[in-house]
Amino acid sequence: MANKTAYVSKPMDVLKNSLEKNIMVDVKGNRTYSGTLEGYDIYMNVVLSNVSETINGENKGVFEKMLVRGDNIIFVSPSRSD
Amino acid sequence: MANKTAYVSKPMDVLKNSLEKNIMVDVKGNRTYSGTLEGYDIYMNVVLSNVSETINGENKGVFEKMLVRGDNIIFVSPSRSD
Amino acid sequence: MANKTAYVSKPMDVLKNSLEKNIMVDVKGNRTYSGTLEGYDIYMNVVLSNVSETINGENKGVFEKMLVRGDNIIFVSPSRSD
Amino acid sequence: MANKTAYVSKPMDVLKNSLEKNIMVDVKGNRTYSGTLEGYDIYMNVVLSNVSETINGENKGVFEKMLVRGDNIIFVSPSRSD
Amino acid sequence: MANKTAYVSKPMDVLKNSLEKNIMVDVKGNRTYSGTLEGYDIYMNVVLSNVSETINGENKGVFEKMLVRGDNIIFVSPSRSD
Amino acid sequence: MANKTAYVSKPMDVLKNSLEKNIMVDVKGNRTYSGTLEGYDIYMNVVLSNVSETINGENKGVFEKMLVRGDNIIFVSPSRSD
Amino acid sequence: MANKTAYVSKPMDVLKNSLEKNIMVDVKGNRTYSGTLEGYDIYMNVVLSNVSETINGENKGVFEKMLVRGDNIIFVSPSRSD
Repeated sequence: MANKTAYVSKPMDVLKNSLEKNIMVDVKGNRTYSGTLEGYDIYMNVVLSNVSETINGENKGVFEKMLVRGDNIIFVSPSRSD
Repeated sequence: MANKTAYVSKPMDVLKNSLEKNIMVDVKGNRTYSGTLEGYDIYMNVVLSNVSETINGENKGVFEKMLVRGDNIIFVSPSRSD
Repeated sequence: MANKTAYVSKPMDVLKNSLEKNIMVDVKGNRTYSGTLEGYDIYMNVVLSNVSETINGENKGVFEKMLVRGDNIIFVSPSRSD
Repeated sequence: MANKTAYVSKPMDVLKNSLEKNIMVDVKGNRTYSGTLEGYDIYMNVVLSNVSETINGENKGVFEKMLVRGDNIIFVSPSRSD
Repeated sequence: MANKTAYVSKPMDVLKNSLEKNIMVDVKGNRTYSGTLEGYDIYMNVVLSNVSETINGENKGVFEKMLVRGDNIIFVSPSRSD
Repeated sequence: MANKTAYVSKPMDVLKNSLEKNIMVDVKGNRTYSGTLEGYDIYMNVVLSNVSETINGENKGVFEKMLVRGDNIIFVSPSRSD
Repeated sequence: MANKTAYVSKPMDVLKNSLEKNIMVDVKGNRTYSGTLEGYDIYMNVVLSNVSETINGENKGVFEKMLVRGDNIIFVSPSRSD
């Protein structure tokens, strides 16, 4: 199993590999925030730019920049070109 | 990827770069607090001045100064001039 | 940006500067507690005297003294004379 | 402001000064527990004796002794003779 | 006030003094678990034997032994013979 | 009271004594998971095999193996032969 | 009981043994995420690829890659070939 480690992606690497790329952040309360990942920290706080917000599947706000608190995140998914 | 680091914004820098500028703080329970960022700490507690509150999208209170506890914050977004 | 620091209010300073003055404490569950701030600690636990309680905007109890647990606080706002 | 410190009540002093006196403990879920404070710890866990419980404002149980977990406490208020 | 300390019951002593005796454990979600206290730890996890469960005031299960996680406990009350 | 200690069951011993035996794990959201306890850790995360799930009292899934996160556990009860 | 230890599966081993295999992750809010486990960390944050999402039992999104935050996980179950 030793060489298996080579295949493992560490969770935070998903964020590292998505820098400057588009991601979707799914947040408690049926909200999503999609935008370009500009940064993150070990608490999974993320900085997004050019953000589209959906609440219950409907488009709501558009934001130039946003800091999303990691606490409320359910999942983060990189967009297809990853 | 080493030089990529130069582009990364650390989440707390969003707050640092917004000092004395207008931000919107989105808080659990469908509340927003918009005002001038006067200060913050590592727990994401923020101090705002000249604050407008909305609950479920309706204008509610206006406050000269306010300390918002970081725990309940979903996101922070700087206003356009950032 | 170095001299900017001079303008920053630390969140806990909002409490320090409100000692012996009136504040409003907004708490989860649509509750507010307004009274004179007598003390606080680093967990944002606060001691109030001459407290008026509102629940869903209606006046409820009046309390001579009260210790409000910091955990449940959404925001603290000093009254106008600050 | 230095001598101001003399007037500050630390939150835990509200509990210390209420030992052997009556207090009301307001707990999440619209519950209150009123009784004589027999002890407490730094987590705000409290021991009460001769306790009356209300749920949604209605009298429910009566308990000889009770340990209330600090986690769920919204506020603690000493009764008038304090 | 120095000799007052003699009268203080530490919260965890309520558990210590209830070992091998009957207690009622009130848990979030309108549940109670009544049984003989067999053990506990500093997280307020408790071990009960001969346990009766009520949900919303109705008798539900009966359990020979049970470990109740401290996290969800609202209060613990020793039965009368304490 | 010194020799009383001999009778105390530490909460985690309930898990230790249930290894390779059947237990019921009651989880927030009116769910239960019953199966053979294969392992656990200090966070009360448990590994079960041959698991039956109930939600609101109705049988739902059956799972060969399952890791249940300790955070959401309300209680754990060993089956009768303990 | 000493040799019993040999049979114990540590909870995190369920994840380790499922690397590159299919798992189902059950998350608060009646959601499941099924996909290939690509990695995890000590907080139970998991990386999945080729993910199918269900909400209240209905198929919703499909995602190439996803980082699911450990906080919200109720259980993880390896698929049959484990």
